[in-house]
Amino acid sequence: MTDTIRIIGIDPGLRFTGWGVVESQGSSLRFIAAGTVKSDAKADLASRLCQLHDGLADVLHGHQPHEAAVENTFVNKDAGATLKLGQARGIAMLVPARAGLRVAEYAPNAVKKAVIGVGHGDKKQIQLMVGMLLPKATWDSDDAADALAIAICHAHHRGGAGARIAAAAAR
Amino acid sequence: MTDTIRIIGIDPGLRFTGWGVVESQGSSLRFIAAGTVKSDAKADLASRLCQLHDGLADVLHGHQPHEAAVENTFVNKDAGATLKLGQARGIAMLVPARAGLRVAEYAPNAVKKAVIGVGHGDKKQIQLMVGMLLPKATWDSDDAADALAIAICHAHHRGGAGARIAAAAAR
Repeated sequence: MTDTIRIIGIDPGLRFTGWGVVESQGSSLRFIAAGTVKSDAKADLASRLCQLHDGLADVLHGHQPHEAAVENTFVNKDAGATLKLGQARGIAMLVPARAGLRVAEYAPNAVKKAVIGVGHGDKKQIQLMVGMLLPKATWDSDDAADALAIAICHAHHRGGAGARIAAAAAR
Repeated sequence: MTDTIRIIGIDPGLRFTGWGVVESQGSSLRFIAAGTVKSDAKADLASRLCQLHDGLADVLHGHQPHEAAVENTFVNKDAGATLKLGQARGIAMLVPARAGLRVAEYAPNAVKKAVIGVGHGDKKQIQLMVGMLLPKATWDSDDAADALAIAICHAHHRGGAGARIAAAAAR
């Protein structure tokens, strides 16, 4: 009997933070839940960060993952956008860490490689592969689908089911 | 009798987050405390964000400020540095907001203008003026001195003592 590991992937953003929970056991990878935590664009920044914090804390409380993974991305457009993303990402890493979870970080091309077999590809390709790897998965935003891809990437890198599935997908 | 308002200024950084607490009452501005919350550069990012969180939460608990102010700065050097600062800044805004404090944001030149009377100036000039405006102030880092400057700036902008002192300093 192999231990079941429940993983939460998080795709942080100030407006929309996607999350996706999967279970990895032996050779299988199973969809548990996915969704999007939103912050009110009309609220001040500190309140928005509180909204992200409370939303993510609720998700962790509801789904009790054992490990977390966050994409290590940054926006190149302008420093203001990068700072905003950094603030949301700080919250996305803090919440699971405060709950005692190990928080892994993955570069965007590592996530793509784990899910579609190569280090590049568009949102459509990622979502197609997430749907194949997790047949029961549903998501309410691109960010939630990305979060599931990040969770799959972590399953792959920690060994076990994810690795085998990703290897099969790459063939 | 004018109400006493206790203000915490925070200068966020992943390695060193400076903080400074002042009290504004009627025409007077009084130093309460200042210091630096550090994170362990050898720890992983999520743990470092937890260290900043816990350190700032301790400061808030110990000094019970009514309002908070954070500098709205961003690094232009490279996106990686800006993302790091953003993560620390997210925590610096989250902690007081979760404690129910209003969190104001000020541009670096607004902070300089409030403290030295003009929108530009180096660290030395800022520290000289912080020392004049708060004669009993001590600080253990440049970041803590900057945090006191941010607190003075907020006292200035919310009206009251800070405004008068800054106006005097500008003459």
